[in-house]
Amino acid sequence: MNETKILLSERDIPQHWYNIVADMPNKPLPPLHPATHEPIGPDALAPLFPAGLIAQEVSGERWIEIPDEVRDIYALWRPTPMFRAHRLEKALDTPAKIFYKYEGVSPAGSHKPNTAVAQAWYNKEEGVTRITTETGAGQWGSALAFACQLFGIKCEVYMVRISYDQKPYRKLMMNTWKADVFPSPSDRTETGRKILAENPDSPGSLGIAISEAVEVAAKNEDARYALGSVLNHVLLHQTVIGQEALTQMEMAGEFPDIIVAPFGGGSNFAGIAFPFLHHNLTKGRSVRAIAAEPTACPKLTRGVFRYDFGDTAGMTPLLPMYTLGHDFVPAAIHAGGLRYHGAGVLVSQLLKDKLIEAQAVDQIDSFEAGVTFARAEGIIPAPEANHGIAVALREAEIAKEEGVSKTILINLCGHGNFDMASYEAYFAGKLGRLSLSQDDINTAVGKINTPEIAG
Amino acid sequence: MNETKILLSERDIPQHWYNIVADMPNKPLPPLHPATHEPIGPDALAPLFPAGLIAQEVSGERWIEIPDEVRDIYALWRPTPMFRAHRLEKALDTPAKIFYKYEGVSPAGSHKPNTAVAQAWYNKEEGVTRITTETGAGQWGSALAFACQLFGIKCEVYMVRISYDQKPYRKLMMNTWKADVFPSPSDRTETGRKILAENPDSPGSLGIAISEAVEVAAKNEDARYALGSVLNHVLLHQTVIGQEALTQMEMAGEFPDIIVAPFGGGSNFAGIAFPFLHHNLTKGRSVRAIAAEPTACPKLTRGVFRYDFGDTAGMTPLLPMYTLGHDFVPAAIHAGGLRYHGAGVLVSQLLKDKLIEAQAVDQIDSFEAGVTFARAEGIIPAPEANHGIAVALREAEIAKEEGVSKTILINLCGHGNFDMASYEAYFAGKLGRLSLSQDDINTAVGKINTPEIAG
Repeated sequence: MNETKILLSERDIPQHWYNIVADMPNKPLPPLHPATHEPIGPDALAPLFPAGLIAQEVSGERWIEIPDEVRDIYALWRPTPMFRAHRLEKALDTPAKIFYKYEGVSPAGSHKPNTAVAQAWYNKEEGVTRITTETGAGQWGSALAFACQLFGIKCEVYMVRISYDQKPYRKLMMNTWKADVFPSPSDRTETGRKILAENPDSPGSLGIAISEAVEVAAKNEDARYALGSVLNHVLLHQTVIGQEALTQMEMAGEFPDIIVAPFGGGSNFAGIAFPFLHHNLTKGRSVRAIAAEPTACPKLTRGVFRYDFGDTAGMTPLLPMYTLGHDFVPAAIHAGGLRYHGAGVLVSQLLKDKLIEAQAVDQIDSFEAGVTFARAEGIIPAPEANHGIAVALREAEIAKEEGVSKTILINLCGHGNFDMASYEAYFAGKLGRLSLSQDDINTAVGKINTPEIAG
Repeated sequence: MNETKILLSERDIPQHWYNIVADMPNKPLPPLHPATHEPIGPDALAPLFPAGLIAQEVSGERWIEIPDEVRDIYALWRPTPMFRAHRLEKALDTPAKIFYKYEGVSPAGSHKPNTAVAQAWYNKEEGVTRITTETGAGQWGSALAFACQLFGIKCEVYMVRISYDQKPYRKLMMNTWKADVFPSPSDRTETGRKILAENPDSPGSLGIAISEAVEVAAKNEDARYALGSVLNHVLLHQTVIGQEALTQMEMAGEFPDIIVAPFGGGSNFAGIAFPFLHHNLTKGRSVRAIAAEPTACPKLTRGVFRYDFGDTAGMTPLLPMYTLGHDFVPAAIHAGGLRYHGAGVLVSQLLKDKLIEAQAVDQIDSFEAGVTFARAEGIIPAPEANHGIAVALREAEIAKEEGVSKTILINLCGHGNFDMASYEAYFAGKLGRLSLSQDDINTAVGKINTPEIAG
């Protein structure tokens, strides 16, 4: 059999992050003040983020140097391996060549530490001693806990109450890395106390947890806030994935026709796709980059492009994004990382400009694809990752029908070791199909009262 | 910072397994028939194992070629990375250089697939369509499920009832790889039915589960049995670890003074240590190889060297081993993989001949070491692995006291993603110290009525 893994050495860890803003034909629109709806500048973000990250958030520079100390920590798991999925190709009997880049080798088990380490470093550089964040199922919270521990920063995680109770292992992982984890709503914030007063048994939500984490950061000079996706600087940090993948594809003598990645807020999609889009935008390439979202939360395929809040409560700046409305509540699919109402600004603009594509995947199809993958390749993927695999399998099937050999690259963003209960539900036939009706979509979108975008 | 990872390419996956029998000054004693106590030959094993594995079990050849198809599957995760533990050294402020070989990158999350894949292949070659095994916490069962799936072999796992009920995620992992998992005692075997008749609520034990798996294999011509440690051929397959580690240490310009690995039946200790012992036995080297066992199950440090059964029920051949007695029941420590009464034959003979060392570690000290490791290096180790880390930390402390730089190599045999409940118990202060009194040891050893070994 031919080579299975394409491996790089530590010397190949990228030296720069790639900022796609420099190459975008239409630059992203500015964020707006949540109350005045006027464009806001970098200063407005200062209570929440260190200056180094704000500078990246608004930068137009194409390449931004990665600090040595961040690259040293990346070396704990980077460069990540790329695999040629020989066994999966055989199982599918497809002429397509399928590759996957595997981010599950990080200590936290997903791509999230790529930005968590960078964010922790910029905070440390500016004397921040405490970082707050929210987490749902726990992938992001554990990545930030890991990163903060390496720099001696106190990490405070507001974890959605129902996940806190039902999924203790991610919480324990955060504790092992010394983070303090609080069930949200908590009595530590005004937001939390207000909600608990109304409903002492509140199961919490990501929107509430964001509000709590933001409140603590805003009110404490020593503290800052960190977000795991959506924002420009978060997507930026993930581009180490795609840069490595470019080198690895070259070593394999290939260039992908299609790249697929699951889509929640956009960070892991951007991470693999943007460095290849650089070749589309500046070097005449034409790789198709496909974002795979759940049919239960189809903001890219069925949402609208307009200004909306990043959180449920409407505390964040208004961002120009594809959205289903900031109070849209997706069905409780197991791919918790994809249950977000909106899409990151950069990805939204690229989709608007038809420079990327999106496809929706039902949860049942996603698990079917994930199980097919696990039985062929060994790795049991996270439920989020299964969405990307499902789209790859679709495209491989099309290649087979057309009798052409396509090269498909999947971003396998994490393992499913903490998600086996979701596989249990799938095997037990407890999952239903979750397509939204056009009425559901109209109702959700119709409620949005934030500013529209002209054109 | 200097290099963190030492990586090999697929071309560096070993071509042969290393059989230490060829280099042992005293060859292992023969197994005895369980009833007659007469030495038995290879034929006696034929109902349970394919001829290819039996040939390895009794081989005196130094190098045994690894089939190409096995190496192709090894390539899904091998060669595994070796890390220089820069951050751990700094946290300990030790002059010791600490390296760790990380086997947790396999799809099943431990070193166990190294032998599972080999065993499945030899079975497939001889037309076996069904393999039975037992599993406690599930590391071995999931490795065999993974391996069988790749060769289209039916895998039947008897999982200790209490683990089956309390630890569903490992079971689900096996199901994902298509294995059938039955709580043991089951109504599928005479052994199981007999026990259930006496006690319908039996929580099961590894001894019972072994008996069930062996019974099914012995009674069905299409089925064979597989064991995850102890036997010579199992230890043999794991030597890919140490061979890779030799190359990686050489690349780092080092040769270890000390190798440490946790010890259950001996497979992961042997895997890393034997290829280095080859250098001790034939090339004048003098690396210290230290097996780290739990104080709750101290067969190497406090047991006796004599013939004993491999299972609780006394169905297996009698093996010459360090043992606490085949009906010794270790306390319910979380490192389930180390709760075995005896030690593999090859390792026992080497210990008897003072060619290796052993140290015992209390469970509290093991978790303290594991948490120190996780906070410095990121990876959260399996509870078994923590025992090896604890011994490494001891040796690093001694190096510090003596003011000498020692090079220490740890076999980090797996991650703790499925074991976070054990960390919870540790953090909550629910673990006690578990040293056995000399009376406890005398009682356990005094009950052994199997043949003694002269000398």
